[in-house]
Amino acid sequence: MTDAVLDDEDAVAVHHAHAVWSCLTEPGDGVAGTLIGEMGPVDALRAAFEGGGPTSPSLDAGRRRWRARLESIDDAFDRARRVGARLLVPGSLSWPTALDDLGVHAPRALWARGGPEPLGVEASLALVGARAATGYGEHVTMELASRLAQRGVSIVSGGAYGIDGMAHRACLSAGGVTVAVLAGGVDRAYPAGHADLLARIAAGPGVVVAEVPCGTPPTKWRFLQRNRLIAALSRATVVVEAGWRSGSLNTAGHAAALGRPLGAVPGPVTSAASAGCHRLLREYDARCITSPDDACELLGADAAAPEASSGRTDDRTRVLDALSARSPRAADDVARRAGFDPDEVRGLLALLELEGRARRGPGGWRRASPAQ
Amino acid sequence: MTDAVLDDEDAVAVHHAHAVWSCLTEPGDGVAGTLIGEMGPVDALRAAFEGGGPTSPSLDAGRRRWRARLESIDDAFDRARRVGARLLVPGSLSWPTALDDLGVHAPRALWARGGPEPLGVEASLALVGARAATGYGEHVTMELASRLAQRGVSIVSGGAYGIDGMAHRACLSAGGVTVAVLAGGVDRAYPAGHADLLARIAAGPGVVVAEVPCGTPPTKWRFLQRNRLIAALSRATVVVEAGWRSGSLNTAGHAAALGRPLGAVPGPVTSAASAGCHRLLREYDARCITSPDDACELLGADAAAPEASSGRTDDRTRVLDALSARSPRAADDVARRAGFDPDEVRGLLALLELEGRARRGPGGWRRASPAQ
Repeated sequence: MTDAVLDDEDAVAVHHAHAVWSCLTEPGDGVAGTLIGEMGPVDALRAAFEGGGPTSPSLDAGRRRWRARLESIDDAFDRARRVGARLLVPGSLSWPTALDDLGVHAPRALWARGGPEPLGVEASLALVGARAATGYGEHVTMELASRLAQRGVSIVSGGAYGIDGMAHRACLSAGGVTVAVLAGGVDRAYPAGHADLLARIAAGPGVVVAEVPCGTPPTKWRFLQRNRLIAALSRATVVVEAGWRSGSLNTAGHAAALGRPLGAVPGPVTSAASAGCHRLLREYDARCITSPDDACELLGADAAAPEASSGRTDDRTRVLDALSARSPRAADDVARRAGFDPDEVRGLLALLELEGRARRGPGGWRRASPAQ
Repeated sequence: MTDAVLDDEDAVAVHHAHAVWSCLTEPGDGVAGTLIGEMGPVDALRAAFEGGGPTSPSLDAGRRRWRARLESIDDAFDRARRVGARLLVPGSLSWPTALDDLGVHAPRALWARGGPEPLGVEASLALVGARAATGYGEHVTMELASRLAQRGVSIVSGGAYGIDGMAHRACLSAGGVTVAVLAGGVDRAYPAGHADLLARIAAGPGVVVAEVPCGTPPTKWRFLQRNRLIAALSRATVVVEAGWRSGSLNTAGHAAALGRPLGAVPGPVTSAASAGCHRLLREYDARCITSPDDACELLGADAAAPEASSGRTDDRTRVLDALSARSPRAADDVARRAGFDPDEVRGLLALLELEGRARRGPGGWRRASPAQ
């Protein structure tokens, strides 16, 4: 419940206000998002409940629905404390800035079980798909997740049965970093059959996150909203198997709307479990993904896209500055020189390798070409 | 060996000259193509063999290679007569004008067993793929070929084992029109195991064609050149199964180069027989084809493309003129009114239906909207 970078009273108030807003709002509440964007979370809370603030029909409706949840806050905080969930808030160092692309529909906060570092990994791939996966789909998911994990790519998914579960599991087995994004509170395992898996993710180098506070059950709406988080937290999204109306197509739609590269794994045209993937290839211009190399190429595609020229590129420049063209350096050494977390630097190095700007050798990492 | 529209001496000379050129040249001989394009086939023959014509290193090399084949002409004509092969030449009514898109690399002539009418069918789809097809590929091919045949689309393929053979067979079983394009002479069945199939195609409403004269064995080069004919004779090309380096990718490349729509059927990424199809989806921007409807859409896509506004569109206008918005008419009746062959008109009607300009009902065909 604390964030090391917030060390004065104002910061604590801001942090607390974000937490409160997270309890009061449903995911995607644009009215709250606009109000907080204009006034900051603390003043927005005052404006919402102390009177004298702006009025409008949508704000008044907002006040009514937020007020109805005021009493749930203590319970949510208690539950978070009991399971050791941490709160990540916008503007803090541990906040995944990729979420800011969601604008006023960005989450108010994230509740996390496990270290927040995996959320900052640059090379992150969403691997999602049908709960009713076939043996084929699970096999392909296992291949993709484990090979990408070995290359330092973090795997983001929704913790569900089928493709999601296989993606997390294969990533863990390969010693990789995985992120499970839940539609309900992180204090309850959903599905219940994945309680052990989610606990393993939270205990390992991975993280289990949700934007809804602890104690919140998942609903249809929250699943759909959760899907936008999966897309936003990932540099690219790949759908492995999906029925014609699968929820994974919703995740894919969010990825496309965010301008993030989208891929789909083809399958037999006779398999209903691949119909949604073929639809993505036909209607959404998804890239056809047949191998881990294809998925890496998809991640690299983003690096060339306009939005990659934002502040996030500077991180790569910092890592590049910490590399030598002649002497290979261990990732931990690079992390120290560049002032990054080792996990974070591994993701950045993987991206630089995809871009052909860094090379991995037996002795460690080197810059691919002489300094310019 | 005769063509009804050529009824004067000059026409006979032109016809004969095309036949001779067909015997003298290898497929794709651009030097001959340029010479014939400039002078016409009769004068080009004189220029090639009687002296006094233009000279250039490439023309002189051409003369040497053409001269080497002068003695083979009689034998080729004899063989054609024995199997009842007809000769189709550029500029004649039965010539498929779609081949003219090949420019100087268009064939000098086509040798045909079976009626030439199927070559003029507007709605024609090339269905090609690996010889080493899987059960999955054969199943999908059967579905596509039979459903499309039922909708009046002619199926063009290469007569090979695997996907090609299944495409021809399924089309025949559905009572459709199919075109087999061979790499060697039409007097010899290749592969020998398809002798019965090819004979059935030639005997039915279909046709077996080749640009090389009778007696010519197929070679690697002739297979590759044959592939350009399959692409050029079809409004669109769909590859069902193909290995990473399959010859079908060559056909696909020709289709793309000709600006014809290209489709590929996806399959399991774990199947080597689908690797070429996935390559087409990734590298050639092929459309993902999962059903007969998708293939029809691909055929329709061409209708909207610029090259469809050529003279071939006039045929559709003629058929549309022969339709009534109120009284349904049988296809044969429409053929009589529009002055087309019934087979030809069925293809045109299928295209108009795809474009939403004609409707098929229990009583026959109608124009989709009132006369403009």
